[in-house]
This record gives sequence, C-alpha cells and structure tokens, in this order.
Amino acid sequence: MANSASGDSVIGRVMRIIDSFSEDRTVQTVSEIGRRARLPPSTAHRMIGELVANGILERDAEHRVRLGMRLWELALRGSTALKLRQAALPYMERVQSAIREHTQLAVLEQEEALCLEQLSDPNAGANATRITGRLPLHASSSGLVLLAHADARLRERVLAAPLRRVGPGTITDPSRLRRTLDEIRRVGRVVAPASIEEVSTGVAVPVRSAGAVIAALSVVLPRERPPGAAIEELVVAARGIERSLSTSTR
Amino acid sequence: MANSASGDSVIGRVMRIIDSFSEDRTVQTVSEIGRRARLPPSTAHRMIGELVANGILERDAEHRVRLGMRLWELALRGSTALKLRQAALPYMERVQSAIREHTQLAVLEQEEALCLEQLSDPNAGANATRITGRLPLHASSSGLVLLAHADARLRERVLAAPLRRVGPGTITDPSRLRRTLDEIRRVGRVVAPASIEEVSTGVAVPVRSAGAVIAALSVVLPRERPPGAAIEELVVAARGIERSLSTSTR
Repeated sequence: MANSASGDSVIGRVMRIIDSFSEDRTVQTVSEIGRRARLPPSTAHRMIGELVANGILERDAEHRVRLGMRLWELALRGSTALKLRQAALPYMERVQSAIREHTQLAVLEQEEALCLEQLSDPNAGANATRITGRLPLHASSSGLVLLAHADARLRERVLAAPLRRVGPGTITDPSRLRRTLDEIRRVGRVVAPASIEEVSTGVAVPVRSAGAVIAALSVVLPRERPPGAAIEELVVAARGIERSLSTSTR
Repeated sequence: MANSASGDSVIGRVMRIIDSFSEDRTVQTVSEIGRRARLPPSTAHRMIGELVANGILERDAEHRVRLGMRLWELALRGSTALKLRQAALPYMERVQSAIREHTQLAVLEQEEALCLEQLSDPNAGANATRITGRLPLHASSSGLVLLAHADARLRERVLAAPLRRVGPGTITDPSRLRRTLDEIRRVGRVVAPASIEEVSTGVAVPVRSAGAVIAALSVVLPRERPPGAAIEELVVAARGIERSLSTSTR
C-alpha cells in the first residue's frame, strides 16, 4: 500500500523531497524539487501538496516551496539532539567567551561526526564546519574522539578502509590512527593539527552520559595558538555538560 | 496509492508517528507509538521499520524507538529557522550577558508564537517557555509583536475569537488588544506584564527581513525589574540580527 509500482516507498520519496533542500537551497519550485527527488511531475505535485497541507513544507507568495517550521518543531521537540544541545549551550558559551574562536558540539551519525551546535567569534580563524555539517571521523578532532569511543566494529571498519587525506595533517596510516585512538581513550583528549585545514588545529574532548561517550566538544584554533587553555576549558565544560545531563529531569 | 482504505495517507500517518514523541517522551516502544499514533499494530510495526531504515527513527539496545539524528539534520539543514537562529544567536548572547534572565526568539507558526531559541540564566526568574514551545499570540510579548505585524486577516480572526486569559495581565478585551497592537506598530516594542505569569514581564521587539517582520526578540523579566535596559538591549540586538540577515550570503 505504501509502495509505488517501482517499489519506491512513500517514505523514501518524502525523504528525497526533504533531502533536496540544503543550506544553499532553502527555496525551490515544485519542478526543481521533482527533478532533484527523481519524481514524475504529477507525483511531485501531489506529494508536495500533501506535505504543505501537513506543514512539513510551506509555500511562499510566489508559490515556491521551502521546509516548514512544523518539520523543524517536530524534529526537535522530541529529539535527544535538542536535549544535548540545551544542556551543552551554557557551557559552550563559557568556552567561547574564554577562547573566542569556534566551539563545536558533535555526535556520531552514520559513520561521520555531525555538528549539532557551533559558536563562532566574528574574528575567529578559518573553519569549514557548519551546524548540521559533517566531518570524517579520522580527519577531525571531534571525529577522532567519537571514533576512539565508538563500537569496536565501526572502529575496525574505519581502520580497514582507505583513510582519505583531507588536510596536510590528516592521519592516513591505519597503525598511527590506531595508536592515536588508544591514546585518546587513555588521556581523554586529542589535539589534531591541520587534520582538515593547514591553518587550524582542532582540540576535542569526550562528553559522557551514563558512562558512554555521546558527543565530542571541540574548539578550532589558529595553528600557531598553543592548545593548553582550550583543553582546560573543554575539560571543565564537558564535566559541566555531564552533570547537567545527569540531573536533567526533562 | 499513498492512501489506505480509510483514506488516511502515509504522510499523515508518518506525521502522527513523529508527533507521538515529545520533550517528556523521547523514547517509546513500538506498541506505545502505535497506540498514540492510532495505527494497527502491524501497520505501526512495518512503518516504524521503514522509518528506522531511513534514519528518521532510531532503535536503542532494548529495541525502544526514538527520533533519529537524521531527521534533525534534514529538518534543520535547509530550514529558514536555522538561518534565522544562527544569525540571531550572537546578538541574543549579548542581550543575555547584559540582562541575565531569559532571552527568546520566536516566529509566527500556525497562529501561535513558536520559540526557536532561548538562552536562560541559571538564576533567572520564572518562565514557562521552552525551545519548540508555543505561546498564544494575544498573551505573550513575542506573540503580541508577531500579531501586530501579521496579515490583517489573521489579526482580525484573533480579535474576533474569545481571548483566553492565561495570566492576570492577559489582554482579554478586543478593543484594548487592537489599541495595543496599533501602539506596537507605532513604537516598535511591547512591555507585557503578567500576560502569562503573575511574577514576570515580557518585553519584545520585532525583527525584520526585507521589510517584513519575521520574528520577535524578547526577554522575560521578574515583574519588579524596570524594562528600560532590556528594551535598549533588544533594539540594538534586533538591528544587529537584521544587518546579519541582510548581508548573509548563505
């Protein structure tokens, strides 16, 4: 009942429609959406109409389509991401007011580090990450922390696959990566110079809930800046987030 | 094709499944979801399986179900809410560090004020709002600002309907509400004491983009605190957000 003749489910098609929007493409025409979501025009038209009726999509005055606030509300209201973000934000603000570069919170999502929140100083140095942006696990300080504490099967899978070079400092040798992950578990932090960009160093620590590492808290510093103060701030902030999560009644 | 025998669409059923999660209910069993989404067990089972396969839902180790990070990512990535929130956050932080109570950003959504972001001081006074929380338009400072600048038809609809008393200061008289809305448009702000809670005063200003009011920026103060400093901070912050939105290339 939920499937078309091609075996393509309604849910899969809805996902492709939502997926056709991006940070650089927040407004589209019905035919643009249909083309990008690989849907026949009549199907695109009908499904978009129904998504608009449900508040998942919205139409503007020119009948162009954008993601609806209702989707945003539904996605966040019951999400663990929002809880984590709310617990972390006050502590991220303290890190940010002390370090004044980029402060990020990331979680493991489909074998990448997904950025849930980022605070950036207007005068901060280079940084490629965006909220909802994704970073490779082996080539970002957040990713390395998440990988060090990930399920052993995921870790072995990453270690067995080719390790793509992203920046001049990316670890591309599997045995060096394995030693780095062991060290992260031992010392509780990582300093990763130039793993993404030559001019930047990522510094990250784990954030735990009920004993398990659920997120990485990090700052991106200009390469020349010593990481000591950032490490101290991150460790204190991570403890604060952990306390806040453990006492949260929500 | 997308409809069951009852005329209930797949999209409608997916919405009910997602809607069964809330801030107080982030993890559910398949049968709890089925019951709350009014779905037969077999339908609930099949649809939840498909939503898990698409990353919209996730299963934990005990096979209970929660909203997936992928939904969060999709909903935010292409959303105007995220852009607005990102533009607003640095300015909200300045208001918050000066006033140290609750600083909120809200938009009009389905005839209510939907809170997109809130920064709260740990020692701040009472406040009922949450992120993704909703407030009545006539009974909150954000809502009054949004209503003052809403489409005239929406305004007349609200003025014609019963104005429910929420707090002791809620405006329940339509002609007084009309005068208040006129004044908000004239002076560019509102001070609303006890409109929700007896002990609090809401202070709100509009945020514009391309000439139209797209959001309200507000603080919730203890009733005894004079609103002057908050108004000044809010006006400066709103101008900052507007500049940031107008120069944003994203």
